[in-house]
Amino acid sequence: MKFSIPRGTQDILPGESEKWQYIEEKARELCRRYHYQEIRTPIFEQTELFARGVGDTTDIVQKEMYTFEDRGGRSLTLRPEGTASTVRSFVDQKMHGWADQPVKLYYIGPMFRYERPQSGRMRQFVQFGVEAMGSSDPAIDAEVIGLAMDFYKELGLTGVKLVLNSLGDQESRSNHREALVKHFEPVIGELCSDCQERLTKNPLRILDCKKDSEHEKQATAPSILDYLNEESSVYFDKVKKYLEDMEIPYVVDPGLVRGLDYYNNTAFEIMIDGEGFGAITTLMGGGRYNGLVEEIGGPETPGIGFALSIERLLMALETQGIKLPADHQVDAYLVTMGELAKDQAPSLIHKLRHAGLSVDTDYLSRKMKGQMKAAGRINAGYALILGDEEVQAGTIEVKHMLTGSQETVNISELTDYLKEGKTKGES
Amino acid sequence: MKFSIPRGTQDILPGESEKWQYIEEKARELCRRYHYQEIRTPIFEQTELFARGVGDTTDIVQKEMYTFEDRGGRSLTLRPEGTASTVRSFVDQKMHGWADQPVKLYYIGPMFRYERPQSGRMRQFVQFGVEAMGSSDPAIDAEVIGLAMDFYKELGLTGVKLVLNSLGDQESRSNHREALVKHFEPVIGELCSDCQERLTKNPLRILDCKKDSEHEKQATAPSILDYLNEESSVYFDKVKKYLEDMEIPYVVDPGLVRGLDYYNNTAFEIMIDGEGFGAITTLMGGGRYNGLVEEIGGPETPGIGFALSIERLLMALETQGIKLPADHQVDAYLVTMGELAKDQAPSLIHKLRHAGLSVDTDYLSRKMKGQMKAAGRINAGYALILGDEEVQAGTIEVKHMLTGSQETVNISELTDYLKEGKTKGES
Repeated sequence: MKFSIPRGTQDILPGESEKWQYIEEKARELCRRYHYQEIRTPIFEQTELFARGVGDTTDIVQKEMYTFEDRGGRSLTLRPEGTASTVRSFVDQKMHGWADQPVKLYYIGPMFRYERPQSGRMRQFVQFGVEAMGSSDPAIDAEVIGLAMDFYKELGLTGVKLVLNSLGDQESRSNHREALVKHFEPVIGELCSDCQERLTKNPLRILDCKKDSEHEKQATAPSILDYLNEESSVYFDKVKKYLEDMEIPYVVDPGLVRGLDYYNNTAFEIMIDGEGFGAITTLMGGGRYNGLVEEIGGPETPGIGFALSIERLLMALETQGIKLPADHQVDAYLVTMGELAKDQAPSLIHKLRHAGLSVDTDYLSRKMKGQMKAAGRINAGYALILGDEEVQAGTIEVKHMLTGSQETVNISELTDYLKEGKTKGES
Repeated sequence: MKFSIPRGTQDILPGESEKWQYIEEKARELCRRYHYQEIRTPIFEQTELFARGVGDTTDIVQKEMYTFEDRGGRSLTLRPEGTASTVRSFVDQKMHGWADQPVKLYYIGPMFRYERPQSGRMRQFVQFGVEAMGSSDPAIDAEVIGLAMDFYKELGLTGVKLVLNSLGDQESRSNHREALVKHFEPVIGELCSDCQERLTKNPLRILDCKKDSEHEKQATAPSILDYLNEESSVYFDKVKKYLEDMEIPYVVDPGLVRGLDYYNNTAFEIMIDGEGFGAITTLMGGGRYNGLVEEIGGPETPGIGFALSIERLLMALETQGIKLPADHQVDAYLVTMGELAKDQAPSLIHKLRHAGLSVDTDYLSRKMKGQMKAAGRINAGYALILGDEEVQAGTIEVKHMLTGSQETVNISELTDYLKEGKTKGES
């Protein structure tokens, strides 16, 4: 019986997995510099958390969740994103009481959405995200954005563009909302049924509608930026000023919205202009969510974060022909000839590995030629050639694979010999 | 509304997550030396894969799987272990055709079993495992065991004990099976109902039974070691000889069995003798599974691997009081006084972070005293003190937190100053 991989998921194999390791290591290293610490939450949560935290009018919650009952009859859902889980943990673990405030967290892990699989959109995908909870200082908005921009830049991506907006505070949003209703009400019959519902529930999401994006009233819709009150306006100016100080270029796009009520003030996306992507494509998004912690049952706590997909990042790197320095190099490959030599292999390579060297050998009893080929294929720095004669003499032939030069080395000196070659960058 | 974490799962928080990173990094580094490469398979698979690959008479498959239907009506299961998925990928991706043989893979990731949660046994837990497929050389059995032993040793665990057995090949097993049936048949009425079923289905598993472990016939049951044929016996001798050469002590325990039919020859477990663990406890298990690839629909391919739980490892480290060098140190904390200084903070720390330094600052507009306290709490190497006066003068006060010494440094020289201190190991 043969089994295929579930639709919309993938195996990440050697050659590819090293890229993932490199990218995740870069994310960790960057978070270390920005002083964000890792949180790992479970793969599934109570279903209701996402209805509450992601929003039960969203496509994610309505159509895309992997929901199931466990054997105890509880409804669980594979997490479709990371923020709701992080906030659940913040509340659960009473992080608002921690001495260090704000609480600065990051996560890297698989998320699950039952979508139609397509290029760059998998049903299981990996997100890297950060959340800073406990501060409403515009400087931390700039910090979060700076971290995201640094991530793409340090991986070598070019043509990365920061798009910025402010959704204002509660008061600004509510004034804007009124204006939107006034604006769209006269033509509501011309919009899609979703938008007709949105008009009273959440008119901001009309601006987001894919079906009605071409309607003439979209272009003339009132801009949130004209409805920011003094406080929101000053806040947004500060964020922009800090980004300028940090030499991070941005464009303001008042059409960049977040549908859910607890989003406010700063919203941002990072786009990339790439051939393989058709037009400009969104790499990631983030924003401020001052109401979310309360929504999930915690005390009033401001927060800001972003999430990005590693799959999309890999596509962008590929499109730009960027090779990550993620090779898997083997220091030495042991070639044995004869039974006596073969029997020495396990203990010999064990010693070399204990010394920190990456070593492999033949496990298929191939002839010497086949073993030398294997050494070449895995890109070994040295081939170590051991015949029964060498065993008797206590020596080994060491062949430098790149230059082809060969030396006889005492077995007892082999580790030092190889480590020296490695330090010199010869291997 | 408040949400609690699903039963049997945990949040891994800052302070703890650094340990996980350290352990995973150790596993990766070790695999690099042993030339095993990472594979990442999906979190869920077709349910039938596990029934086939893990065995549908096992507790895992019968009682412990998280199984659900996706929106397309397919039965999926959160993976309860890693071998079946890895072998599914081996077959799916036609790895038997790869130039490099054997295929040497490792994985690190969450697994799911619906068990009664208890100390060291979670419903979501993380396994590190390796699989070597395509070789039936006893030297690779020794290699896999060596890797596992090195992992525990290099993390500092003591009292680690390798227990070894051979289950023999098909012929040996079948002779042993016959002897077992003969041995238990006369008393089968005294054994539990599970064992009564096992007698015909899989008598080897009677030896594993927790309920009947005290039955007098257990101690006198025929040992597989007395039924190994010539080939299996030579194979086992080779494995033992290689382990001795590698200076890895072991004990042979003929009671160490694996219930499933495709397990054969080498079986092993690593135990630890620890106070916190009550008696001797199993840290991990592994063995040879020459029939599994065929069972999953691939060509006849020998294989061997192990899997271990990181949660258990952490318990063992804790019990032995082993501190992992997994601190999160911040190089510098920027303390600002006055609006002018505060506004300089984002660009200043941005520069320092670009230079590779780990830096944080205040996002709560605390007074100087509160900020200095924060610097101490996060264990910052330096406090960088910036007032409006310093901004005017283009300088900054640099306080070495450990010694308390303080210097005035030109802002333009700050990066070099801090990096030098760091190299010297002062920070």
